[in-house]
Amino acid sequence: MRLTILGCYAATPRTFTNPTSQVLEIQNHLFLIDCGEGTQVQLRKYRVKFSRIKHIFISHLHGDHFFGLPGLISTFRLLGRENELHIYGPKGIKEAITLLLKLGDSWTNFPLIFHEVESKETTLLFEDDKVGVHTIPLDHRIYTNGFLFKEKESPRTLDVEAAKHFGVDRSQYIKIKEGADGISKNGDIVPNVKLTLDPPKAKSYAYCSDTAYKESVVPLIENVDTLYHESTFLETEAHLCEKTKHSTAKQAAQIAQQAQVGCLVLGHYSTRYKSIELFKEEAQEVFSEVELADDGKVFEF
Amino acid sequence: MRLTILGCYAATPRTFTNPTSQVLEIQNHLFLIDCGEGTQVQLRKYRVKFSRIKHIFISHLHGDHFFGLPGLISTFRLLGRENELHIYGPKGIKEAITLLLKLGDSWTNFPLIFHEVESKETTLLFEDDKVGVHTIPLDHRIYTNGFLFKEKESPRTLDVEAAKHFGVDRSQYIKIKEGADGISKNGDIVPNVKLTLDPPKAKSYAYCSDTAYKESVVPLIENVDTLYHESTFLETEAHLCEKTKHSTAKQAAQIAQQAQVGCLVLGHYSTRYKSIELFKEEAQEVFSEVELADDGKVFEF
Repeated sequence: MRLTILGCYAATPRTFTNPTSQVLEIQNHLFLIDCGEGTQVQLRKYRVKFSRIKHIFISHLHGDHFFGLPGLISTFRLLGRENELHIYGPKGIKEAITLLLKLGDSWTNFPLIFHEVESKETTLLFEDDKVGVHTIPLDHRIYTNGFLFKEKESPRTLDVEAAKHFGVDRSQYIKIKEGADGISKNGDIVPNVKLTLDPPKAKSYAYCSDTAYKESVVPLIENVDTLYHESTFLETEAHLCEKTKHSTAKQAAQIAQQAQVGCLVLGHYSTRYKSIELFKEEAQEVFSEVELADDGKVFEF
Repeated sequence: MRLTILGCYAATPRTFTNPTSQVLEIQNHLFLIDCGEGTQVQLRKYRVKFSRIKHIFISHLHGDHFFGLPGLISTFRLLGRENELHIYGPKGIKEAITLLLKLGDSWTNFPLIFHEVESKETTLLFEDDKVGVHTIPLDHRIYTNGFLFKEKESPRTLDVEAAKHFGVDRSQYIKIKEGADGISKNGDIVPNVKLTLDPPKAKSYAYCSDTAYKESVVPLIENVDTLYHESTFLETEAHLCEKTKHSTAKQAAQIAQQAQVGCLVLGHYSTRYKSIELFKEEAQEVFSEVELADDGKVFEF
């Protein structure tokens, strides 16, 4: 599982900082999460292969998470894309993109498939045999969802050495992989758990931006390996959180701590602060495993 | 008259090249012409003061001329803008911007005034006592206008030395400035032209992007000081011009030559070519006064 931060600063693009966008590589998928203005340039800069992006998840329709999408779709068209592109986002996203394509008479020559959400409950957006993606309802000024990316448990793998040890014949291997117990040469039943190995741990990533402090996300993201949680402000500006519906670094850490996540990644920083290290310091007073997102940074989990 | 090129490459933004946008400083106005994705970052990079932009002219609704506008408007809002912002562009631009602001619940706290055009004839878009802006109907895949920026003729200025020489009394100066003839001490009439100096030449700038070769623009732009004319292709790719409705460098030069402009500035280059110098070489075979636009380049006329 590999996370590339394309942009992680709040509000407006600047010369050296970019609004929110990130790429999650998981089980051979390349999921694009949010798409602020300039995302396509960041994708080029960090050499993400455009054609591998098949699913784009948009948390909400504020410009700093969304205004790069029309241009990215146009560029896909100019590059001669033929593969389906799936867009997941709040109701309204289809109307907006469709209007812009219509005004430019720039209909895509590839299937552009919208999956609009409007539920306030967690919803399954995407699923295949390897991974599932659910919404995480957040609390922002407009309708907003985070996203939970979760690998599926792989089946237990056959322990050939153990099978030999217990005298279990090869002819049983397929059934054992499917979960059956084995039978030894002597006719004794050998429990499946003794003939198989634990699968690699299924990994998970939760993305929560933008949101005010919202404890009800905790049960949805419990024990995820990595939580990206916005921290627009420090506690010194906590009074701004209520009006703007953002969080402080401390609040992000409180969510991480309650959900017992493996690692907290902070981002969506207001540019009013001298150094983003201040966010880490504040969060670590509550939760020790803190990383700072930054444009171009890559996390391998 | 000062022209800052923010971006001048065709199609998609790239790591080191930007789609079309430019700023024209004329008679204390700062006119923004087109607004491809990333324009607000280019404005910051070249230190153009956001608050001085009061009029934005959009030639057509293809993404590489327009997709930076929603983000720029949002940024104006975040910066606390209070002044009116006037947007001139094809019919549909108001619906698109309004929908994006509505979806983001991001209404501006400054007056946002749209001036939509749909005429195929040249139209006056803006006028004050110093400058006028007209559309230049172009020939592109969708409805597109270039823009003609023209300073107004200043009144002739009083030649005090001449007035003294002819013995014309000070009491007549105001009327002479308004165009009246003078009367000398001896009672002789002194023609106005002998008592006044030519005003500084009124300057003009024509912007023509995107367009196929279109001779009917020639009478509209005759004798302008500077013509920006797109040259997406070289003659080796002239066969692409008909389908895409773009011009070659040679065609741009032919327009410049017929219109007897002072200087031709080329831009909107396809990125397929090794060097933009090739565009200049091709154009100069037809017309000698050729300059190459490039991102960040400033022209003083």
